[in-house]
Amino acid sequence: MHLTLIYVGSTSEKFYEEACKEYEKRLCAFAGFKSVCVKEEKISDEGSSSAVEKALAAEEQRIKAAVPKGAFTCALCIEGRRLSSEGLAEKLSSLASSGVSSAAFIIGSSHGLSKSLKTGCDMLLSMSDMTFPHMLARVMLTEQLYRAFTIMGGKKYHK
Amino acid sequence: MHLTLIYVGSTSEKFYEEACKEYEKRLCAFAGFKSVCVKEEKISDEGSSSAVEKALAAEEQRIKAAVPKGAFTCALCIEGRRLSSEGLAEKLSSLASSGVSSAAFIIGSSHGLSKSLKTGCDMLLSMSDMTFPHMLARVMLTEQLYRAFTIMGGKKYHK
Repeated sequence: MHLTLIYVGSTSEKFYEEACKEYEKRLCAFAGFKSVCVKEEKISDEGSSSAVEKALAAEEQRIKAAVPKGAFTCALCIEGRRLSSEGLAEKLSSLASSGVSSAAFIIGSSHGLSKSLKTGCDMLLSMSDMTFPHMLARVMLTEQLYRAFTIMGGKKYHK
Repeated sequence: MHLTLIYVGSTSEKFYEEACKEYEKRLCAFAGFKSVCVKEEKISDEGSSSAVEKALAAEEQRIKAAVPKGAFTCALCIEGRRLSSEGLAEKLSSLASSGVSSAAFIIGSSHGLSKSLKTGCDMLLSMSDMTFPHMLARVMLTEQLYRAFTIMGGKKYHK
């Protein structure tokens, strides 16, 4: 299976990049993996809700352009479905069994994702009731994808 | 308020240490904060459940010794209460209002925490249905404590 992690906005915090790199490296032993950084629209802190909506719409276009053709799409958002690590492993496993060869996971900016993007996704996933910085969410998701494959492969990493 | 984060076992992954350091630094603008690393018992990968129990009991003693006298205690575990970031901020705020001046948060090793430690805590908290490496959980919790204070202070960090 080939996985794509699409995230909006880069980070100046090196430790997040390094943490992602570590789990990406481990993940590549099990699956194709690519992470794609999509440019974040700049909005001032006092941005009105219409300015935010406009920014999310622009980001939606960039995200859609980064989704591989025919990929199963999963957006991360607080209203999404909660899965355990084993549940995520089962989901990936059942996708693979049903012939899905590509899955894209999408993490928005601090303003989230547009409604229409979320509506169009095959699945919405929530990792926590808490709000995390999107770059920490990227580390968490990359680690969970790696963990999912160790669970599927019966490896010792997962406890 | 003074916060203590007690965690079992150190890490060789520098990016986790750096991420924690960054949020600890930010948190110190709002509250007293100390993180305490408690030695992890070594168990072989094939450790029996009694070996795990024995290790958790030894770790429990070290954790208890690290909890400041009179502190409110909160253990992180998957069966704990789920809170949003705002919910955690409210909890800390209500503790402060009721005169609690010290709170200790406890993260176990990959084997978790002993039952008796959890039973004795004032609160159990779950950040996710997913299992994260305990050092990533430490980053997540430190960030959430920092976020809680920005929420209480009406700062712009939280979205």
